[in-house]
Amino acid sequence: MASDGFRPLDEKSLLDYIRSTPSLASKLGNQLDDLQVKEVGDGNLNFVYIVIGTAGSFVIKQALPYIRCIGESWPMTKERAYFESRALREHGRLCPEHVPEVYHFDRTMSLIGMRYLEPPHIILRKGLIAGTQYPLLAQHISEYMARSLFFTSLLYHTTLEHRKEVAEFCGNVELCRLTEQVVFSDPYKVSEYNRWTSPYLDEDAAAVREDDDLKLEVAQLKSSFCERAQALVHGDLHTGSIMVTQDSTQVIDPEFGFYGPMGFDIGAFLGNLILAFFAQDGHANQENDRKDYKDWILKTIEETWNLFRDKFFALWDEHKDGPGEAYLPAIYDNPKLQLLAKQKFMTDLFHDTLGFGAAKMIRRILGVAHVEDFESISDDSRRAKCEQQALHFAKMVMKERRKFKGIEEIVSTIREIHLKSKGE
Amino acid sequence: MASDGFRPLDEKSLLDYIRSTPSLASKLGNQLDDLQVKEVGDGNLNFVYIVIGTAGSFVIKQALPYIRCIGESWPMTKERAYFESRALREHGRLCPEHVPEVYHFDRTMSLIGMRYLEPPHIILRKGLIAGTQYPLLAQHISEYMARSLFFTSLLYHTTLEHRKEVAEFCGNVELCRLTEQVVFSDPYKVSEYNRWTSPYLDEDAAAVREDDDLKLEVAQLKSSFCERAQALVHGDLHTGSIMVTQDSTQVIDPEFGFYGPMGFDIGAFLGNLILAFFAQDGHANQENDRKDYKDWILKTIEETWNLFRDKFFALWDEHKDGPGEAYLPAIYDNPKLQLLAKQKFMTDLFHDTLGFGAAKMIRRILGVAHVEDFESISDDSRRAKCEQQALHFAKMVMKERRKFKGIEEIVSTIREIHLKSKGE
Repeated sequence: MASDGFRPLDEKSLLDYIRSTPSLASKLGNQLDDLQVKEVGDGNLNFVYIVIGTAGSFVIKQALPYIRCIGESWPMTKERAYFESRALREHGRLCPEHVPEVYHFDRTMSLIGMRYLEPPHIILRKGLIAGTQYPLLAQHISEYMARSLFFTSLLYHTTLEHRKEVAEFCGNVELCRLTEQVVFSDPYKVSEYNRWTSPYLDEDAAAVREDDDLKLEVAQLKSSFCERAQALVHGDLHTGSIMVTQDSTQVIDPEFGFYGPMGFDIGAFLGNLILAFFAQDGHANQENDRKDYKDWILKTIEETWNLFRDKFFALWDEHKDGPGEAYLPAIYDNPKLQLLAKQKFMTDLFHDTLGFGAAKMIRRILGVAHVEDFESISDDSRRAKCEQQALHFAKMVMKERRKFKGIEEIVSTIREIHLKSKGE
Repeated sequence: MASDGFRPLDEKSLLDYIRSTPSLASKLGNQLDDLQVKEVGDGNLNFVYIVIGTAGSFVIKQALPYIRCIGESWPMTKERAYFESRALREHGRLCPEHVPEVYHFDRTMSLIGMRYLEPPHIILRKGLIAGTQYPLLAQHISEYMARSLFFTSLLYHTTLEHRKEVAEFCGNVELCRLTEQVVFSDPYKVSEYNRWTSPYLDEDAAAVREDDDLKLEVAQLKSSFCERAQALVHGDLHTGSIMVTQDSTQVIDPEFGFYGPMGFDIGAFLGNLILAFFAQDGHANQENDRKDYKDWILKTIEETWNLFRDKFFALWDEHKDGPGEAYLPAIYDNPKLQLLAKQKFMTDLFHDTLGFGAAKMIRRILGVAHVEDFESISDDSRRAKCEQQALHFAKMVMKERRKFKGIEEIVSTIREIHLKSKGE
């Protein structure tokens, strides 16, 4: 490690680092006495420090050359910090309201200095477990997705710019490989990393490993993930990668960022909301049956997709004579054809979204990394019942996704599965 | 030009170049007196010299920073020679029987030295116009396509290797852009470069520019061309990029090589054979009605696809436990599932092939670069009748391609359109 100039920091050496880095020191008004430094990395991969001074604050995120939650036995390139900084800056440029500003990036140290998202910002997933409503969430996240995906696709890029960016982000291959393994492979085979609520889900896990139709679908999704450079996706847009307050929605942690299919991001977000929905019965108690909250989650799912579609179409209309080379105005030269082109594009994207969303749900129930939504349900049998509903829904949607015409049909399917399960 | 060390050669300066280049001189047994040098570039883009000595021979191909057939007014990066040499070497490694050996590459000079394909090798397109049968063509070209596409796809590549290669070939973006323009854009709009057999095809050209269904299909094909890095494709696999004898089939000129959809290559080849078929009535005369020859072309179309499919499947079977990461053996773990996966893959590839093949046909009738198959028919009205049949077929196939189940249905559709046209 020493040979390339990289050294892992701790709370003490971080202070020396800040002192010798003007772009960081200036963010603290150069008042470097009495700094509060706190390591808070509760994610799976990195070390994260909050640094608060009397005249300013920031967050320092450092990638180590392995996966933090597993240890040095699972090496992982620290170059991921470079791609995270690239994605943060690109998405931040396109959607500054919903991406924290990057103040400093040090490639040698795999270290990013960025805006500290002050309280009451919390991880969205924790808010969903607590049963907190975020009335602007659908509005904000649809804005982030529409802008980050539209402007990095061939609807806005020239093919020259696009291939240049694609080539650069091909360098983030190791993180892509991690996704390939844990999302598209491990849940469908015997793997030492897989786990599930046993013995309750033993048969469900075995059924997935023997479901030929499901395996054919997941092969197609994996192929699209590996081959299709449609837009600069966040690559890990679950509810743990979003921080929220009542007024603010901030997307963090795009270290899995690469040029991939748009539906991978939208599906990750919606799939994790659906997981949150099916987990609610595990959080219900005598004081709060979570009925209203479940309705709010379903409303947010519906609004997110519909707002995304509307915002994406609005960007398309606004920039139809712009640099994008996918639909040249001289060819797509009448309003009827433009509408048909948009509808065809959006139908395909909807089906991609459902497929990727389903894959993300399945892996969170049967794969290596589970979600706190379910993990925080302490009773195994109660948790298993929630997980089984989610798994049933996800399997069906992955296989039948091309039959769904709109998000309303998805929401009513979720309701049906949930009601049926409660009736049994 | 001088600043980067590049200088365009002529027959005289080429001799000096050979004298100072041991890898070339040695191919001539270092006997450099009495060399025959002949410039033969009849393609659209480059200068090509045949060099023959008493003890050896080779071909020198030099790319100039513009398109030869148009001139300096249409600049085109000479870096294409680098990607051509890369693709020649990679495809040559995978299929040495059907790709000429590269002896020498000089990136500064954009210059490739490679095997001279001695007489009676001729360009396949010229053989098709002359009415010459090549009994091994389907066997050979299907072998080339199966091996070059299989081994550069995720059926054989790890995703690590794949993304590395994809990134490298993203550099060939200018040649990709040329394809995007002349194949997927210009024929569907008014363009100064378009031409067709006027006035006979004036209405046909206008109809294409007003065909909303066709434009929706071509948008999807273009998107796949620009976004989907499925395999290292030749990128220009028409019948002018293949040299043949009765025993030999050699694929040349992969300067458009990049990671794209497999169907783009297969479609280019089959589409150009279909153009050759529809051109035959223009070459028929009292001595030869070309009836048998048309049957041979159709048989070759059918055999090429079916042999490609069989060879591709055989490679898949042979390497199913190999490095490829698309279908992990632990997941695709039973013969029934493996068969289903292969069938699904091949059905999608067949439909891609038909779509791209149709696009390549349309552009050869309405776009900038026409084919000698038609151009050599001197009578305008006779040529127009041939072109109209081909255009009618291509438009229908692009729109209806997903309904076709096998190449036999394509061949009978070609026969029907042809018979119907003769009956009118």
